[in-house]
Amino acid sequence: MKKININELSNYYNQKVEISGFVDSIRNLQWVQFIILRDRTGKVQITIEKSEEKNKEMVELVEHLTLESTMKVTGILMESPKVKLNGMEVVPSSMEVTSKSEEELPFNYKMPESANIDTRLDYRFMDLRNEKNQLMFQIQSLLVKSMREYLYSKDFTEIHTPKLIGTASESGSEVFEVNYFKEKAYLAQSPQFYKQMAMASGFERIFEVAPAFRAENSNTNRHTTEFTSFDLEFSDIDSYQDVMDLEEELLINGLSKVKEVYGEQIKEVFGSEVVVPTRPFPRIKLQDLYQKLEKRYDYSIPKEDIGDMNAEAEKLTSKFAMEEYGSEFIFVTDFSKTKRAFYHMREEDIPQGYDLIWRGVEITTGAQREHRYEILKKQAEEKGLTEDVKFYLEFFKYGCPPHGGFALGIDRLTMLLLGMPNLKETMFLFRGPNRITP
Amino acid sequence: MKKININELSNYYNQKVEISGFVDSIRNLQWVQFIILRDRTGKVQITIEKSEEKNKEMVELVEHLTLESTMKVTGILMESPKVKLNGMEVVPSSMEVTSKSEEELPFNYKMPESANIDTRLDYRFMDLRNEKNQLMFQIQSLLVKSMREYLYSKDFTEIHTPKLIGTASESGSEVFEVNYFKEKAYLAQSPQFYKQMAMASGFERIFEVAPAFRAENSNTNRHTTEFTSFDLEFSDIDSYQDVMDLEEELLINGLSKVKEVYGEQIKEVFGSEVVVPTRPFPRIKLQDLYQKLEKRYDYSIPKEDIGDMNAEAEKLTSKFAMEEYGSEFIFVTDFSKTKRAFYHMREEDIPQGYDLIWRGVEITTGAQREHRYEILKKQAEEKGLTEDVKFYLEFFKYGCPPHGGFALGIDRLTMLLLGMPNLKETMFLFRGPNRITP
Repeated sequence: MKKININELSNYYNQKVEISGFVDSIRNLQWVQFIILRDRTGKVQITIEKSEEKNKEMVELVEHLTLESTMKVTGILMESPKVKLNGMEVVPSSMEVTSKSEEELPFNYKMPESANIDTRLDYRFMDLRNEKNQLMFQIQSLLVKSMREYLYSKDFTEIHTPKLIGTASESGSEVFEVNYFKEKAYLAQSPQFYKQMAMASGFERIFEVAPAFRAENSNTNRHTTEFTSFDLEFSDIDSYQDVMDLEEELLINGLSKVKEVYGEQIKEVFGSEVVVPTRPFPRIKLQDLYQKLEKRYDYSIPKEDIGDMNAEAEKLTSKFAMEEYGSEFIFVTDFSKTKRAFYHMREEDIPQGYDLIWRGVEITTGAQREHRYEILKKQAEEKGLTEDVKFYLEFFKYGCPPHGGFALGIDRLTMLLLGMPNLKETMFLFRGPNRITP
Repeated sequence: MKKININELSNYYNQKVEISGFVDSIRNLQWVQFIILRDRTGKVQITIEKSEEKNKEMVELVEHLTLESTMKVTGILMESPKVKLNGMEVVPSSMEVTSKSEEELPFNYKMPESANIDTRLDYRFMDLRNEKNQLMFQIQSLLVKSMREYLYSKDFTEIHTPKLIGTASESGSEVFEVNYFKEKAYLAQSPQFYKQMAMASGFERIFEVAPAFRAENSNTNRHTTEFTSFDLEFSDIDSYQDVMDLEEELLINGLSKVKEVYGEQIKEVFGSEVVVPTRPFPRIKLQDLYQKLEKRYDYSIPKEDIGDMNAEAEKLTSKFAMEEYGSEFIFVTDFSKTKRAFYHMREEDIPQGYDLIWRGVEITTGAQREHRYEILKKQAEEKGLTEDVKFYLEFFKYGCPPHGGFALGIDRLTMLLLGMPNLKETMFLFRGPNRITP
């Protein structure tokens, strides 16, 4: 591993360097051959003079070289102002093709718009070689890292809860069924019940970053059957205002780190500005919001969505938040209990929770949870849940502190952060009702 | 959230403090009541003088208080050398029961040996209140954090690969089947194929911490149907020696941080010494190891395991590593190709990979992978794999750098680190053929 990253080459002028990467382009001229080699960090030109006797083997190798093959190259790094690409070139003493690409590529990944989305997803391993996609996952990695670091600094413990569960639990209709030896098991739609179990166990502050599964047979830009959920839960809160406070801090920490490291590149490559929000984010009650949307945009929530939001209302809410508060983020509170999960704490029948809207899309549902056994049981029964949540209700029989929490889908977060058009192009490998490969 | 952690109380003598936690014990004497309140960080005594008029309501509350209820207490923190527990007590001005525990607990979680393991797992939320278990997950969280930090420092990117997959892939027999709309899907046994896909995509260095699923119908101390896998893969290696080097550094970083923060507590609570290994770990070829085990311990590997290890050989190998090298860790290399996955690179027919043994148990299989399409395809066919790995073989058709990697099961790692007897007691929630709840 003496390999040098291409973006660090400028420290090695006139020295022998070893580099490796993909063959990005080849120009085979009469007297000279040029290869552009690409690694994760950049590109560099390799120059081979055909006339030199010692280059004979390398010249021959380049004659048969195919684009996207991988190579290991050793040579002297020269400062060459005439070379457009970084003003440098490597004059190789040895070259090795470490893997050979087929001549014909499945599509031109450098021009993703030239292929349809299904071709791109079929050959996602190639689609991901696109510079934009490369950058996207480095950004996502940093975002998650920074959010984790914030939680560690607040004494949160990471846990790993099971995804194989015994009952269809939260909402039977959208859960995947697994053949579990001679029984049935299900795939967890969220770690909700187990996050709360950790509270009953006295863990006080936990988070988990893990897959969540939804058997929703819908094909929209926002839906997927599997996504990565950033979940947290913490105890000894006074109200769901504490939950919103923590989410604000978490997002500010994550976004400011992303802006610091990748802000310029995001602007350049994605045309998207990273805006680090300031605290507090605006908070508005759903009923007040309805009035604002009606007055400003002549928008009335349809009957079936009363007490809740929908995609259009979310878009307008973002518009409103920007116009009224200059904020990309806005918390909406006071949803109807009929539209919220049974485990949200209620006060005077109003769920003590919120949705957080960012850039026209809901990114979080958070809440204080009901931690008192009798009330929780009653609220479950009201929603027709009995047998499936029995194991969960047990968690609250022997003491459980007041607590709350929320979840963020990191794929959705990445999509919005970078202004990507849909989840298909944002996820490492998208999963939908019609897509389970590669 | 003005709550003060109990282990930080000594900064607040003679001040008003708010604490909260579980009722750990109650003593109701003639003139005075004592409550021991427990949070994640410690325990403290709360003292209520019955004679004082202003305490009337609190005295009444304590009369009906049950163990394991949760409380919020506000009062003055007094330095009281006569109090055995930390020489302090809280004299409360107000107390609130935030949740009430049933009188009779399912078992005494402070004496786990008094309950059978299934009772403990049925009431895992209670079992986890045990001090040992509390500590265990804080240690695991730190271990994973430290290993991640090491990888970030080495420019690794975190990815999230799908757990829902289209083919039974690696080894059809031990894979869970999912009803996926009108089709079949499967649960990934490991992110192996997708880690390698990231290499074909030019990601160069990636890791993932995520669940992995194994439909093994076996009930041993080491088996589980779902576990958390710490996986990594990286490009541009020269051989699998590079993979072993990186694993050494990773483990040294993780264990040294754990020792630094929790070494003393681990000794006290688990009776286990954290030994930070030094590099390099001993490396031995399987054939040489067989000879050593025969000569020293009169142990011959059974016919069916020739070319491989088994549980007994692993135990003896650890004994050998300690006696010969004074090392808890030992790499074993040169397994038989019939016993290794088709994607391990081979040189002169010998798989270029290893097992890492720690404290008598295999904790990793690592390898350089075969990255050349034609050879990989042939090796797959030799193992009878064709249709199921077709999508995977595609990854290697259009260039893929040399690469390698490994996986660590973090539950198993935690079990060995703390000297726990089995995975059932080490996982947040164990999953096995007969256990899918709670």
